[in-house]
Amino acid sequence: MKIDGVAYRSVWVDEDGWSVRILDQTRLPWTVDILRLTDEQQVAHAIKSMQVRGAPLIGAVAAYGLALALRRDASDAALESVAAMLGETRPTAINLRWALARMLAALRPVAPAARAQAAYDAAAAIAEDDVETCRSIGQHGLPLIQDIAARKPGQPVNILTHCNTGWIATVDYGTALSVIYQAHDAGIPVHVWVDETRPRNQGSALTAWELGKHGVPHTVIADNAGGHLMQHGQVDIVLVGTDRVTRHGDVANKIGTYLKALACHDNNVPFWVALPHSTLDMSVRDGLREIPIEERAAEEVLTVTGQTADGKVVTVRTAAPGSAGANPAFDVTPARLVTGLITERGRCDASEAGLLGLYPEFAAKAA
Amino acid sequence: MKIDGVAYRSVWVDEDGWSVRILDQTRLPWTVDILRLTDEQQVAHAIKSMQVRGAPLIGAVAAYGLALALRRDASDAALESVAAMLGETRPTAINLRWALARMLAALRPVAPAARAQAAYDAAAAIAEDDVETCRSIGQHGLPLIQDIAARKPGQPVNILTHCNTGWIATVDYGTALSVIYQAHDAGIPVHVWVDETRPRNQGSALTAWELGKHGVPHTVIADNAGGHLMQHGQVDIVLVGTDRVTRHGDVANKIGTYLKALACHDNNVPFWVALPHSTLDMSVRDGLREIPIEERAAEEVLTVTGQTADGKVVTVRTAAPGSAGANPAFDVTPARLVTGLITERGRCDASEAGLLGLYPEFAAKAA
Repeated sequence: MKIDGVAYRSVWVDEDGWSVRILDQTRLPWTVDILRLTDEQQVAHAIKSMQVRGAPLIGAVAAYGLALALRRDASDAALESVAAMLGETRPTAINLRWALARMLAALRPVAPAARAQAAYDAAAAIAEDDVETCRSIGQHGLPLIQDIAARKPGQPVNILTHCNTGWIATVDYGTALSVIYQAHDAGIPVHVWVDETRPRNQGSALTAWELGKHGVPHTVIADNAGGHLMQHGQVDIVLVGTDRVTRHGDVANKIGTYLKALACHDNNVPFWVALPHSTLDMSVRDGLREIPIEERAAEEVLTVTGQTADGKVVTVRTAAPGSAGANPAFDVTPARLVTGLITERGRCDASEAGLLGLYPEFAAKAA
Repeated sequence: MKIDGVAYRSVWVDEDGWSVRILDQTRLPWTVDILRLTDEQQVAHAIKSMQVRGAPLIGAVAAYGLALALRRDASDAALESVAAMLGETRPTAINLRWALARMLAALRPVAPAARAQAAYDAAAAIAEDDVETCRSIGQHGLPLIQDIAARKPGQPVNILTHCNTGWIATVDYGTALSVIYQAHDAGIPVHVWVDETRPRNQGSALTAWELGKHGVPHTVIADNAGGHLMQHGQVDIVLVGTDRVTRHGDVANKIGTYLKALACHDNNVPFWVALPHSTLDMSVRDGLREIPIEERAAEEVLTVTGQTADGKVVTVRTAAPGSAGANPAFDVTPARLVTGLITERGRCDASEAGLLGLYPEFAAKAA
């Protein structure tokens, strides 16, 4: 997508033909700082320090990290040890391990002399696959926006979203935001209500930044405001992403998603969830009972990071001195509150039947 | 209630017998700064600058402001002009105008020589009435907490609250927090989930401060977290205050209250609203259609105020540069989602029949 009119991806090979470029996401939204990564240690640091974030993006950047390492040492030993080192940068990121396993499978059979080029090719394929997946999600979500636009000619379609599901969490397009970008680029007038998404503010900081840079009209709101806006007809549809969808269609996503789904249900506002198939976990049925919810540091709730009037980025404590905090990072929205799922293969009901209709090959998967 | 073991009210007459003491609430939760007010101009400034806030407290402080003025000039002209000046400090505060009208009615018949003392007496009566109203609300809510405690012996009663409904918004006790203070003081083990209450953070800053200073166990959470906690049985009851209750029992309160009421309904968690009768508006029936919702400055959503590690209180921008914000300050929870109302006369259903059962004299009021 675009930053001030120039098309970007969130990872790409420099025009020198070998070094790897990323946006330093720890500096967003205050500074657009493009980093040049030249070896696997810099890549490991970029992942660990969250200069890159978002499961699909982390996988693609790690793949390029392996390519950078193989330029200097393409031995079997280097291939295995660098892959292992990169795999440990974010231990819980399934997509990271999946990307490195795909790289190893492609590169082990290749002679060392040809491995570096093969690694660049394989990393590029991972990145391109992600772009195509996200583009397809957007295309399959587009008719939902077109239908609403057709019912209110001349007026913008008001879309509410939570957290960041945009191009900077993937290689391009994003998931839920892919639908919004493609609607906007197709000339449909859209306006996005951006939930702040406390405690880490991925909405007000990252989603608002992305949308603004691409030129999509949007307004930041407190997480508390969405229900009121729905009561007054100011939300036509809610589009969110997800961290895990169960076989029965329950949706784990950023904390607060469930409250928006409840408000949608109470106000007859459609609630759609966008996801690539890699997010499906067919081994889990009851999301509420079976999905463990990460409890993150209380400091995230007790403090906020922002920019002072004179341009410094500082972290301030907002809670009363001495008070403790609790910080569950995700919640589970039961399938009964989900209007439907948008995947790279099409839309379906949030149910086992719906999912197996699109992904029949998953029927036997850990059933 | 107490600050570090010492009992306070939020306004009182100094031991000199005439000057007026308040907590500077603009400094909370960072600094406990007690101000001494010696004339009506200082009182007007305290109200305008929100050193005192909360409708009941503003009324009582304004009443004392009139007493301070009458010490120096107790003429009819001074009485009328000072009352008018104080009445304009917060134009929309109904309680402020009500308190000043009560003062004028009491003082106009009094000879100038006796007016100053009569004004102190009348102001004290307003303050005492507020304390008694809030104390009664707490007493009528107490059985709800006792019932829950009886069902889970040895375990704390988990209460979720939103915004600030505490003693610093009234003269003492508060409304919803009065229930919590009285349960705690009665020896019932309570634990309070304190919603941060973006965008102005009255929960994490003020409610957490109050509870901590009085010694009530509590934990600050993001506004997004309450639904998840309810899904997992970690909330026994939700207690909130209100800015206006309609004849039909609809409840206007701080933005985000409606989302918590929806989550209560979905998880069979009781949702109770505490209020003094002065909050009832029997002239309004349908809260959603009839109550105008104040749209406050977008800056409140786009920025946060907090304390840096070196103790400075600063405001930082958290939203992406250039992004706009919207800031509806209140929402309306329909009566169907309200388990019941707690007033100074007792508890009732959130309905016209329930309200008229407690307040039969309101039957004909603007019906």
